[in-house]
Amino acid sequence: MTALDEARVARIVLAHAAEPGRRDLGELVRSVGPVAALELVHAGSLPPSLHEVVAARLSTLDPVADATRATDLATRIGARIITPEDEQWPARIEDLVRISTQGANTIERDTDPPHAIWLRGQASLREACERAVAIVGSRASTGYGDHVAADLAYGLAERGWTVISGGAFGIDAAAHRGALAASGLTIAVLAGGVEKAYPPAHHLLFDRITDSGLLLSEWPPGTNPHRHRFLVRNRLIAALAAGTVLVEANLRSGARFTLRRTRQLNRMAMVVPGPVTSAMSTGAHEELRAEQPTTLVTRVDQVLEAIGRIGSDLAVQGQAEPAGRDALSILQRQVLDGVRPRKLLSAEQIAAAVGVPARHVRATMPALQRAGFVTAEGAGYRLRRPSGEP
Amino acid sequence: MTALDEARVARIVLAHAAEPGRRDLGELVRSVGPVAALELVHAGSLPPSLHEVVAARLSTLDPVADATRATDLATRIGARIITPEDEQWPARIEDLVRISTQGANTIERDTDPPHAIWLRGQASLREACERAVAIVGSRASTGYGDHVAADLAYGLAERGWTVISGGAFGIDAAAHRGALAASGLTIAVLAGGVEKAYPPAHHLLFDRITDSGLLLSEWPPGTNPHRHRFLVRNRLIAALAAGTVLVEANLRSGARFTLRRTRQLNRMAMVVPGPVTSAMSTGAHEELRAEQPTTLVTRVDQVLEAIGRIGSDLAVQGQAEPAGRDALSILQRQVLDGVRPRKLLSAEQIAAAVGVPARHVRATMPALQRAGFVTAEGAGYRLRRPSGEP
Repeated sequence: MTALDEARVARIVLAHAAEPGRRDLGELVRSVGPVAALELVHAGSLPPSLHEVVAARLSTLDPVADATRATDLATRIGARIITPEDEQWPARIEDLVRISTQGANTIERDTDPPHAIWLRGQASLREACERAVAIVGSRASTGYGDHVAADLAYGLAERGWTVISGGAFGIDAAAHRGALAASGLTIAVLAGGVEKAYPPAHHLLFDRITDSGLLLSEWPPGTNPHRHRFLVRNRLIAALAAGTVLVEANLRSGARFTLRRTRQLNRMAMVVPGPVTSAMSTGAHEELRAEQPTTLVTRVDQVLEAIGRIGSDLAVQGQAEPAGRDALSILQRQVLDGVRPRKLLSAEQIAAAVGVPARHVRATMPALQRAGFVTAEGAGYRLRRPSGEP
Repeated sequence: MTALDEARVARIVLAHAAEPGRRDLGELVRSVGPVAALELVHAGSLPPSLHEVVAARLSTLDPVADATRATDLATRIGARIITPEDEQWPARIEDLVRISTQGANTIERDTDPPHAIWLRGQASLREACERAVAIVGSRASTGYGDHVAADLAYGLAERGWTVISGGAFGIDAAAHRGALAASGLTIAVLAGGVEKAYPPAHHLLFDRITDSGLLLSEWPPGTNPHRHRFLVRNRLIAALAAGTVLVEANLRSGARFTLRRTRQLNRMAMVVPGPVTSAMSTGAHEELRAEQPTTLVTRVDQVLEAIGRIGSDLAVQGQAEPAGRDALSILQRQVLDGVRPRKLLSAEQIAAAVGVPARHVRATMPALQRAGFVTAEGAGYRLRRPSGEP
């Protein structure tokens, strides 16, 4: 077995040894490497707090046998396991180390990168994440939220972006379905074993995702999606994407946690607003009100602009094209206000009506005539077309 | 005639001499006073650009007669005229001087304070503006926007705040009506003479506003509400209020101009978001996306918090009260995930299931029992009530 294989084997066993995200185990692996870390585990030479956890989980003392069993099991359920040793491991996952090592308080717990990832689907995870946006939100979404999430996902997928979400009811499902509808890549990041994707009602959706995209989890097969695991999982959604769009969230939504992680990773946190009369947008609006870097987005091009594909993906500034009166200067508009549809008026009369010097009126008229607003007849002017003014 | 009366008379005549907002005339009045400024006007000793305008407007050379005529006319139409010499003149109007004297480009034209204001209604303008918020938005509003504007206005009026708007169709009307429904004060700032309030379809609304609140204009009676005047008028709405709330606006809405003036005056610019699927919220969302100080608001208390009545009006932070699992620490939640509803489990079994040390499970249990989540039986634990977990 090569050193690389040894490291892989050790990581797979370590992924079984404790819940993902633990900083203490992650630090140990980073300082001595996965193989030596696993040896310390087996020798019982860990800090007591870590030993207690790991001892309760590890039943055998044979890493190779354990890893082989895990790999065989993965194959049986149509999955594969990747570790940081693999080509396919997205480098951006390792950005989680920074949050994990900086996190001092309890809410920043469990933010270390995973040791291994179980994957179903043929796509390369690294390639799929190169241009990827997460879309997350409430499970109890409204028709509005589902529509917007599906629409954004469709537009992103159509432009070659992968849509990442959590496979849950509501916004997650709408995002996955939107991407699939555009024949795009989508990734569902689960909080339990990939063999029994949760929620069960989504098994057809998960099959469709697996056909073209990826179903993945950092938990070994057989792990139940406990509530706590959803929160831990959210950091991985944030880490795999260049930015996260929150579509609908009530005040307590776990999707807000994903946005928090997104900011901690210095990725783009984006929020779609909604009606203020909808409880399902209260959490979204709180995110926009908070003094945190958050971008309000309403359209695909604004999402792409936010995540910084300046150039080809730059959002056109949300100004309507100048047309009609909007294209005029303030002085031109002011003068135009004084011109009547039927009655011919002199420059002096117009000047008196609108309160600008008569010479300004005269200077302005050629442009107004060229733009088709005004007709000159002799020394007088009238409107060329009804202006619909009040 | 006292010097004070002389100044009043001069201002009233000056209000007829040119369109409101002109910086050159305002500067002249500020440097020599209104009486001397009017003398310069009559002597024809003005800079040519100003003289051209003023000469076209001033027909007589008798300021006292002109002012008397104007005052008589105002009385006939049930109005009164106030100038900066009056007690009732709100000091905050003069904040416009700062924008006007700083404004270099054409879009900042016509931002000088008015010389006089025509008022209908019994309330004191100064007192009515002491606690005042402007609510503005699209004329072509949706049911959603009308509802939100009326609701905000109602809540503000109920708390003793005056609601200022422009008397137009749509959001303006909804705001006035919301304030009236709460028997509150509301002010309509018009862009033409107060005797023929525009739009005519609102004459009943204007009557109701006049009964309890104020209808006002900086234009003399007989002035038509030209389009350009609405834009000029918007600075006065912004100046009279402590802050402006934009409810619905499409990209080209003039209400966005009011928000611009609000920011220039260092007042609070607030925006209510809406569905991203609604064209009537695109301008509102653009304001929130722009790199300008803008506060997203969804409720009355957030408006009051924004305009800084810290203390009694402070918005409760938009966090739901902790209840149920939300009140638990992350460790407590994690442990609780491992407790089953029917099967008694030992601390060690729970520890293995959720991946925390058994001693942490034991340390956590008393709190979970006190909170009513867990029951202890012998050395085992089970859930006290179904947790509805996945």
